[in-house]
Amino acid sequence: MDSAREQPLFLQLAGAIADDIQRGRLKPGEALPGSRELAECLGVNRNTVIAGYGELAAEGLISTRIGGGTFVAESVIAPFAAHAPSAEYPTYPLTPPVYRLPPISAPIPGALNISNGMPDVRLFPAAAMARAFRRAIGQRGRALLTYADPCGHPRLRKELAAMLARTRGLPVAPDNLMITRSIEQAIDLVARMLLQPGDIVVVEAFGYPPAWSVLKLAGARLMPLPLDDDGLSISALEALLTQQQVRAVFLTPHHQFPTTVVMSHEKRVRLAELAVRHGFAIIEDDYDHEFHYAGKPILPIASGVGRANVIYLGSLSNLLAPGISTGFVIAPAPVFERLASLRAASDAQGDAAMECAIAELFEDGELLRHVRRMRRIYAARRDTLAASLTRHLGSAVTFRIPAGGMGLWLRVDDAIDVAAWSLAGEREGVQFFDAGRYEFFQREQPFMRLGFCYHDETELDEAVQRMARALAQTRNGGVRSTRNATIQTTQAISHG
Amino acid sequence: MDSAREQPLFLQLAGAIADDIQRGRLKPGEALPGSRELAECLGVNRNTVIAGYGELAAEGLISTRIGGGTFVAESVIAPFAAHAPSAEYPTYPLTPPVYRLPPISAPIPGALNISNGMPDVRLFPAAAMARAFRRAIGQRGRALLTYADPCGHPRLRKELAAMLARTRGLPVAPDNLMITRSIEQAIDLVARMLLQPGDIVVVEAFGYPPAWSVLKLAGARLMPLPLDDDGLSISALEALLTQQQVRAVFLTPHHQFPTTVVMSHEKRVRLAELAVRHGFAIIEDDYDHEFHYAGKPILPIASGVGRANVIYLGSLSNLLAPGISTGFVIAPAPVFERLASLRAASDAQGDAAMECAIAELFEDGELLRHVRRMRRIYAARRDTLAASLTRHLGSAVTFRIPAGGMGLWLRVDDAIDVAAWSLAGEREGVQFFDAGRYEFFQREQPFMRLGFCYHDETELDEAVQRMARALAQTRNGGVRSTRNATIQTTQAISHG
Repeated sequence: MDSAREQPLFLQLAGAIADDIQRGRLKPGEALPGSRELAECLGVNRNTVIAGYGELAAEGLISTRIGGGTFVAESVIAPFAAHAPSAEYPTYPLTPPVYRLPPISAPIPGALNISNGMPDVRLFPAAAMARAFRRAIGQRGRALLTYADPCGHPRLRKELAAMLARTRGLPVAPDNLMITRSIEQAIDLVARMLLQPGDIVVVEAFGYPPAWSVLKLAGARLMPLPLDDDGLSISALEALLTQQQVRAVFLTPHHQFPTTVVMSHEKRVRLAELAVRHGFAIIEDDYDHEFHYAGKPILPIASGVGRANVIYLGSLSNLLAPGISTGFVIAPAPVFERLASLRAASDAQGDAAMECAIAELFEDGELLRHVRRMRRIYAARRDTLAASLTRHLGSAVTFRIPAGGMGLWLRVDDAIDVAAWSLAGEREGVQFFDAGRYEFFQREQPFMRLGFCYHDETELDEAVQRMARALAQTRNGGVRSTRNATIQTTQAISHG
Repeated sequence: MDSAREQPLFLQLAGAIADDIQRGRLKPGEALPGSRELAECLGVNRNTVIAGYGELAAEGLISTRIGGGTFVAESVIAPFAAHAPSAEYPTYPLTPPVYRLPPISAPIPGALNISNGMPDVRLFPAAAMARAFRRAIGQRGRALLTYADPCGHPRLRKELAAMLARTRGLPVAPDNLMITRSIEQAIDLVARMLLQPGDIVVVEAFGYPPAWSVLKLAGARLMPLPLDDDGLSISALEALLTQQQVRAVFLTPHHQFPTTVVMSHEKRVRLAELAVRHGFAIIEDDYDHEFHYAGKPILPIASGVGRANVIYLGSLSNLLAPGISTGFVIAPAPVFERLASLRAASDAQGDAAMECAIAELFEDGELLRHVRRMRRIYAARRDTLAASLTRHLGSAVTFRIPAGGMGLWLRVDDAIDVAAWSLAGEREGVQFFDAGRYEFFQREQPFMRLGFCYHDETELDEAVQRMARALAQTRNGGVRSTRNATIQTTQAISHG
């Protein structure tokens, strides 16, 4: 069965006849040949024809008159011409789309996309996952496939809560942990629970634009604040708080995205104090907590004093694969109750089968082993990328080795036109771009973020060599694009 | 590997030590026995101990000093006491939960829940699904696991669009078909795109309360209109339209939920005309289209004139299993573009792995075969339930045989107290309830909806016999509860 990727003969036959009916080559009411006759004509077994006719009858495309042969059904549905989507306008008013999909850089065949921040899914334990999924939908059958808890399957909630309490010191039990479809869904639920149109939400001046879009959907007025060497500028926040009622602060304190800085413990404590005093929520997005390679772990804001004001978000997609999209959210009981009610209303339950399969990877220790392995591999790739950059690009870029995360944050020498370099890179087979797309105002930046997880060490070194060749071309007479000399929000960042 | 459901020994060992560390029985800095010593003491292989220590080190719980043994890490995270969820209140203001989860009738062991409207997942092609999933995440690897299209994977969109164009005459191409996580998510996206707080949305007086909840989330003011023998009362709608600006009509025209009536073709045309003329949207929820057992198919409103005003929703969960939650939405290009932007912002992409697995079931013809089989089985179950009701309950209930769907709609004799009957039923091992929970105002009803898909024919007959025994008890002196004599919104329904 496994290798039978081709359709069985009777389905091919049914498909061919259905096609003729739908294209009008066979008209409603027209007689079809008898099964014996057609079988002889096609040189197939008569049972194949009978099974094929059975499919067509089941779809209502043909009918059999008692004692009188087989006919194209009179009630055949005229298929919509050419199956083209209707571009007709409805007569009700439409508002403009809320969000423009960011342009996806078309992959260039053979090119290495070093700006890609994804995990390396070649290392994903696909076989273990497939086994776990089979067991989940097979053995647990009826109970699993009809199970419905809007907060996620208890098996996964139990395993994940235990892991988070153990490794992150979070005040979490299965009862205040919700599995979400994605981290975006988690942010969406939080925003819908928390925000009224016009509410001020503080964000980091460099960040993850999709998260900003979700907040804006709920009507948030976003206020970007600068970043220091140890994360969000608390003094800038304090200044803002003297003037404005802030409803929430959304941030990525662990490995700030995209700059990779770790927010200091002192700043975390200070931020939590401000939240409690001024009555705002902290939305702590800890999307890649596991990928920490060095130094003492700094605990999440949600694990400390003031945690009642923190809503904590995470993801399993970076541990598993982006194509297996799973997020989670943790909140104190009164907040959790409201999030659960929103989830139940807006998306019913999750995908119990997939959740159970992931739970089994936890139970077997498979996931933990995978995390260990990834941590070792990614740390080595980080070091390789850093070494390659130093060797091949010299003083063109400066950077610090981050303690964790999935990328390096580079300061590009002011004499270099990043846009021209990036263009030359495409010709050399390497894709990268400046960090403008991560900046709140989308302004061109003398910074870049390079990913070190997606590619292996050989690929990373090759990509950097191509960058070096592209840079040499740019310096030998490439066209320079103009760039703002001073960029307010980035001055505070001074890596390297 | 498959049968190894127990944790390997080294993980059990690591777990036991981790537990001791976290409960404080082993303190930070305390020395652990050497691997040889511990192996002898426990009677296990030394490699088991080494592997166990490896796990603990990887989690940062222990550390090894060069040439100096193994110690509990100084930086061990103090786990949150008892892992209890925090019930602390944040200092920011909270609004009440938007939605109360409906009380789930606790299953009574051994009881048959004849009000259960779910499909019979015992018939779900679990083995084929598991194979398809394995192939999806295995062979297609990298491309699949990093694929991200907020509207769903192209393979599934292509197959589903072809099926819908062929069997439902819908003007659908992959480009205006979006795969959603659930039908609730589809309604949520439509409501957020369409509605401003206070907008009027017409619904059927009997319906699916979770759908109403989603619409209310977006601020809809819901207006229930009565149902006739052939669906939503168009004259009532016309009367409303003379007085109010209606923004949308949400309905289930194919097999109306829960009354099972099929909306006539004439009414569909009339409704579409009204929508175009008055500038409102029709949200057509066609949740169980495939389960039609008799008569000519009536085409969806979305396939006819006026379709530009129709947003069409469907689900694959009833075809597959509720635990594999998948919905879809079809809309004309200008509307679709807005839905896609909302989806991209609020939930990023879908689950590409699962979507590909389902696509493969289409490609192989497996899903079509499953639908055929279900249609045959469910039609027989419908007939069995009808025969059992007639045989065992006589004139206590009256009903029509529906042309499709997953349940029967019963009118209960006025002399019978449904609440008392239902209570007696629980003692007899059968669960059922009156249709009040489907009525807009949640008032007690002389109607019931019984599902005929979840249980097999033997179970259905047994359930009805238990109902009959329970009824006999009720008539022999059960307590009657009071009930409104006249119920405005249900008078138009006169089945049987």
